[in-house]
Amino acid sequence: MRDRSGDIERMAELYVGFGANLQPGQLLGVTAYLGMEEIARAIARAGYRRGARYVDVFWWDPWIKRARLEHADEATLDYVPPWVGQRMLWLGEERAARVSLVGADPSAYDGLDPARTGKDVMPYVKETPVVVNEQTTSWTAAPFPTLGWAQQVFPELPPDEALDKLWEQVLHTLRLDEPDPIAAWHERMDTLIAAAGRLTERRFDAVQLRGPGTDLTVGLLPSSKWLAADFTTIDGQKHYPNLPTEEVFTTPDPERVDGFVTATKPLEFYGARIDGIRIRFAGGRAVEIDADTGAEALRGIAAKDDGASRLGELALVDGQGRIGPLGTVFRETLFDENAASHIALGNAYTFPVEDEADLPRINTSAVHVDFMIGSPEVEVDGLTRDGQRVPILRRGDWQL
Amino acid sequence: MRDRSGDIERMAELYVGFGANLQPGQLLGVTAYLGMEEIARAIARAGYRRGARYVDVFWWDPWIKRARLEHADEATLDYVPPWVGQRMLWLGEERAARVSLVGADPSAYDGLDPARTGKDVMPYVKETPVVVNEQTTSWTAAPFPTLGWAQQVFPELPPDEALDKLWEQVLHTLRLDEPDPIAAWHERMDTLIAAAGRLTERRFDAVQLRGPGTDLTVGLLPSSKWLAADFTTIDGQKHYPNLPTEEVFTTPDPERVDGFVTATKPLEFYGARIDGIRIRFAGGRAVEIDADTGAEALRGIAAKDDGASRLGELALVDGQGRIGPLGTVFRETLFDENAASHIALGNAYTFPVEDEADLPRINTSAVHVDFMIGSPEVEVDGLTRDGQRVPILRRGDWQL
Repeated sequence: MRDRSGDIERMAELYVGFGANLQPGQLLGVTAYLGMEEIARAIARAGYRRGARYVDVFWWDPWIKRARLEHADEATLDYVPPWVGQRMLWLGEERAARVSLVGADPSAYDGLDPARTGKDVMPYVKETPVVVNEQTTSWTAAPFPTLGWAQQVFPELPPDEALDKLWEQVLHTLRLDEPDPIAAWHERMDTLIAAAGRLTERRFDAVQLRGPGTDLTVGLLPSSKWLAADFTTIDGQKHYPNLPTEEVFTTPDPERVDGFVTATKPLEFYGARIDGIRIRFAGGRAVEIDADTGAEALRGIAAKDDGASRLGELALVDGQGRIGPLGTVFRETLFDENAASHIALGNAYTFPVEDEADLPRINTSAVHVDFMIGSPEVEVDGLTRDGQRVPILRRGDWQL
Repeated sequence: MRDRSGDIERMAELYVGFGANLQPGQLLGVTAYLGMEEIARAIARAGYRRGARYVDVFWWDPWIKRARLEHADEATLDYVPPWVGQRMLWLGEERAARVSLVGADPSAYDGLDPARTGKDVMPYVKETPVVVNEQTTSWTAAPFPTLGWAQQVFPELPPDEALDKLWEQVLHTLRLDEPDPIAAWHERMDTLIAAAGRLTERRFDAVQLRGPGTDLTVGLLPSSKWLAADFTTIDGQKHYPNLPTEEVFTTPDPERVDGFVTATKPLEFYGARIDGIRIRFAGGRAVEIDADTGAEALRGIAAKDDGASRLGELALVDGQGRIGPLGTVFRETLFDENAASHIALGNAYTFPVEDEADLPRINTSAVHVDFMIGSPEVEVDGLTRDGQRVPILRRGDWQL
């Protein structure tokens, strides 16, 4: 197994200096899972070197959660200690920078009863989307390769090799294999921001995706705006909420989605793997849900509430990204949703909607489940209000 | 290195079931250092099996703190994030059980500037003594042997042997080498409670300690009461705040301490080791402080504020305890203060004072530093108001 200490230092610098864009005097909140000590400590050092007023690490241990899921009285499983949400609101009030690490060992939850696991969504707390939508913190969600994660991604390899391979792929997607990663990121973001700008400019009435097993038309709202994942806080601080990121995305019209779609990658959801998803939409609603494996789990998600069977997001991923070409199923949404164009059942983001009059029309739900429907074979077109068809993506290349 | 999984399970049961005495439906707060994953997870399992409503683990990483002490602007080092204190107050309001683990690797702070380290006292927060004095939580402070701690205690041994030896000594002091540890604890506590009761009954005016290099008279308040470390919350829940515990203690009169004293064990304080302490007291105040090494550090502590040079505690430890006979310097106050009779410079506990009229007379300070002054050679006498001398301890045996 290779020594990763240099990679970890450069990773921490990227997350703190570029992703969260920490400014001198700012607080830095970090969410880290047990098993991520090295990167958390490197982030703390990077934060203090850049003048952080305080680096506050929220540690989360999946094995403590497992003890709860195994032994606690079921009626108590939705209890959330108040300080976790208070801490998130404090980071918002303090205009903090935030780094949220992903890549925890998912095997901690092996063999648990899904009916119980679904009741405890910690470390997620309801205050997190509040702070995200208030745009008060400069945040990034970014990976750390743990052994447990690597073994899920490359189960056919010996553990050490699996971890090395995951490291190499993660470093590649983070552009940390470039001599100047930040320049590489700026170049990539320029492409995505330009594509998003051109898509917004056209004010398409709908987007159509056509390919093997897919012919889906997704209606847009009059003021649906396309965004790349470069955000700005209400105080004007730039940050990159996902590292890596390859998508441009918008909030669709949840009443106007029609046709059928076949997923191009498996979906991981609370430890369940759903393969070969096929969904038929009519009038915005998923009216038929099938899959090769795990169909029941997906139907369960879509039945969670009224908005769970309607779309909350449409995202396009071109062929120049670094995740899709690897062909790896990372079993982490941060990676897999940036591998290919995707849609999400459930809750919508408010900020891609420019006109307040459109806000009441967007989808709301307790869930937000992304799944991949794009590939080089899938053609993406824009449909104008006067019935014209405008090519958007062909074989992964922007046509606008 | 021996497999400790069985020991860890029994340790967790002792801490949760006996020390904190968790009741069904109660919250359980745990303070754990990184490196104590095994015991924290065993405590969580033990807690949930006993019906904990939720087990809330506060993780603390000395290496994240080191990053701060090395790199942060000195003016920010006294900043404390509000949620840490809010969490402690919440545990009090919820009438939680609490387990606070000790035994973290002290080498995380090696080589740091003491002037900077003294400014950051986290994870200690000012809300902790508030909740302790309110007696709303059923808590225990208890050890977990980490490799870093073991190497400090037995630097002459190879690391594996040092850890094994520390484990054996810790299990012995916890009575976990007994077939029925709880029965052994009840038996020991009965002795200590009886000794404390007899001491309280006599209402001594003062206690005198005489031995090699020591002739010290410590005045008591009219309502100074002697206690063993079995506590009861305001709701009547028994708990054992220290495991192991061997002491009976009281709150002295900070105006009436006279004579000289020689420490019988070294004192560890924020990574500094102070050997051969010799102090002369007059009118309650430490007027001369000497030591073989580290005298300056101790003088610095005593100059911290007005109460730092006066006594806040007098504790007697008999010869039947399990720590003193080992002859080990554990470099952890929880152990070393239970090895021999001791006094503490600084802040006093309120609960050993029975009469509210005496409360304004007790010592107050920002510090509380215990150091050991007892040994089998030190004779302890009670002095009555009418000038009689009553033997209390001779060669470690109770005389009352």
